[in-house]
Amino acid sequence: MSPITATYRVDAEASDVAHVAQAIALEQSVELPLAAVHDTYVAERIVARVAGIRSREDGRHDVAIELAAETTGGDVAQLVNMLFGNSSLHAHVALVDVAWPADFLAGFAGPRHGAAGLRQALGAGARPLTCAALKPQGLTVERLAALAYTLAAAGIDVVKDDHGLADQAYSPFAARVEACQRAIDRAAADTGHRALYAPSVVGSPRRAAAQAQVARAAGAGALLLAPALLGLPAFAELVRDDVDVPVIAHPAFGGATRIAHPLLLGTLFRMLGADAVIFPHSAGRFAFAEATCREIAARARAPLGAFTPMLPVPAGGLQVEGVAAALEFYGDDVMLLIGGSLLIEPERVRERAARFVAAVRDASVAPEASPPRPSIAGSAA
Amino acid sequence: MSPITATYRVDAEASDVAHVAQAIALEQSVELPLAAVHDTYVAERIVARVAGIRSREDGRHDVAIELAAETTGGDVAQLVNMLFGNSSLHAHVALVDVAWPADFLAGFAGPRHGAAGLRQALGAGARPLTCAALKPQGLTVERLAALAYTLAAAGIDVVKDDHGLADQAYSPFAARVEACQRAIDRAAADTGHRALYAPSVVGSPRRAAAQAQVARAAGAGALLLAPALLGLPAFAELVRDDVDVPVIAHPAFGGATRIAHPLLLGTLFRMLGADAVIFPHSAGRFAFAEATCREIAARARAPLGAFTPMLPVPAGGLQVEGVAAALEFYGDDVMLLIGGSLLIEPERVRERAARFVAAVRDASVAPEASPPRPSIAGSAA
Repeated sequence: MSPITATYRVDAEASDVAHVAQAIALEQSVELPLAAVHDTYVAERIVARVAGIRSREDGRHDVAIELAAETTGGDVAQLVNMLFGNSSLHAHVALVDVAWPADFLAGFAGPRHGAAGLRQALGAGARPLTCAALKPQGLTVERLAALAYTLAAAGIDVVKDDHGLADQAYSPFAARVEACQRAIDRAAADTGHRALYAPSVVGSPRRAAAQAQVARAAGAGALLLAPALLGLPAFAELVRDDVDVPVIAHPAFGGATRIAHPLLLGTLFRMLGADAVIFPHSAGRFAFAEATCREIAARARAPLGAFTPMLPVPAGGLQVEGVAAALEFYGDDVMLLIGGSLLIEPERVRERAARFVAAVRDASVAPEASPPRPSIAGSAA
Repeated sequence: MSPITATYRVDAEASDVAHVAQAIALEQSVELPLAAVHDTYVAERIVARVAGIRSREDGRHDVAIELAAETTGGDVAQLVNMLFGNSSLHAHVALVDVAWPADFLAGFAGPRHGAAGLRQALGAGARPLTCAALKPQGLTVERLAALAYTLAAAGIDVVKDDHGLADQAYSPFAARVEACQRAIDRAAADTGHRALYAPSVVGSPRRAAAQAQVARAAGAGALLLAPALLGLPAFAELVRDDVDVPVIAHPAFGGATRIAHPLLLGTLFRMLGADAVIFPHSAGRFAFAEATCREIAARARAPLGAFTPMLPVPAGGLQVEGVAAALEFYGDDVMLLIGGSLLIEPERVRERAARFVAAVRDASVAPEASPPRPSIAGSAA
């Protein structure tokens, strides 16, 4: 099997970087000094190798290290371990990129539905999609369901739980998901526009699997999952074993800044099965650089193994007024997520949500002739 | 239920910090502007509150925020979400501490065995314990088992898998654990000293549970688990449902530097069930500050809810020559872990391991009269 090439960004003096690079190679493979490696197979096949060092203009160095794919044992947790287990503890080392051999990538499922599957579930063509959130947590099931109706009736494509909605006493998961899905169904019957509802599944693995089962039974057409919160291995297993609808990945707890965000959100989330990925748009309340946002979107769509593209979902403080600029930045193959700013005036939520839907339609780079078409989202799986 | 008080360290201008603090309080609770919170219950009970702002000498500010415990829904993933979900994406915010109300802590199990249980399983009194690692990965099962015999026969207390050992083709988990446990048993029969063997369980939740079952069937007396690698919720569930022997936590992938290491390794790992925690000693190859190491050890032992103390396990480049200094620093209630430096000369591993055992015995602050006593580790559960 060809090696995996991981790139680490290293803070070190130029005179010291070769030494640091070799230390990373040992730390991420045998975790021993070379002098203590006495076995020929280990020395030749398991010890990681420094493949290159490139000095950057900012004074740091990008160190490319070839890791033996065999060390991962075909497991997500162990892959993360080999990529950044011990080196994550070194404050001068960040993991910024990984080049995957094709035979290694073939061991991952990637998105089951991807951007195309989400569009198909919505009966949407190539136009940009819209997404809004049920929030704040603390509202009763009835109020959340009423909000779901309002947003769906306004023409929003994906109505998702706020990622803060879990299984709290004030809106228990099962009751909430059932009520919100029924509200979405009613909106579809009343308006002809069928939104996808994406409940937020958050919990330890067995609890999350049980929640996914409840969501499926209720007919929810998508799921919101935060891979970094669940743990990357648990996320991958849940998507593989317990989910069949499109998965929208949320970045919560993904702020381990020493894994570059494009790698974590744009590549790893996709490899592990996300169909769409929410991330902070540069023009919002999280200070993500434009270049970072562009790179996340590019990685979501770029050829990678045999994986279908994942849909970028910029969010995090987006406003209706910013829709046109966002679409110019990301193009049409995107879903825009506006959360709180739709909810400022309780009696005008539907109007604001409809304005959002219209703004996306009007600003679309390649506008469709028709408004969002109804479809049978419940059968998307 | 009393609120959870989380402390965030914020990079901000003094004139701006009150605004930033309020923004964190909203982000970590309702994720909405206050203007969009129209529900009285939410406004009064769910919105997080800034409890205090303390400016530090380094120009940063410690912001204490009270989070409603009800928002966690009694789940580990959701707890992490409420503590540091979205705010982890803000580069200017680090999570540095949490004060837990007693009724909230009572919902966690903490260590099942703790430091005292590990000592009891080893038949050790109050003396410092020793730990060594089976490595490097890439060795065959037979060579790893031979190394396990050598280290156990030399008197090492806990022989653990290197955290890089997973379920790879060159040393499959089941065969390795079976062979290494048998080697430990043989060493006990030959020398009268019974070591505890701690296999490394790493994998997605169902795979990890299956591995834990294999380890139990083989009679392994402890487990090595990396909570950040497994994911904190998966770790907690595994320990609760699938493990009954002492759990030694490994810090791999725990380098999200924006969660303070003492909080993550010293407190959270313990709350979630670790009996002992491995962390980089300041005098090793990871640049952990002495103050950080002292704080991790202090948190492992400090009163916290009804939890039994967790055993600190300094590691990461410790040498036999550094044993006395390490024991002076940590005291006797500790297990020292030496990995690679025991293995430099293949024909002298037993001698070096025995020197390590002797150095710990000799340097012990309160030396025992007797050498390590044999005990029935397999029945520790």
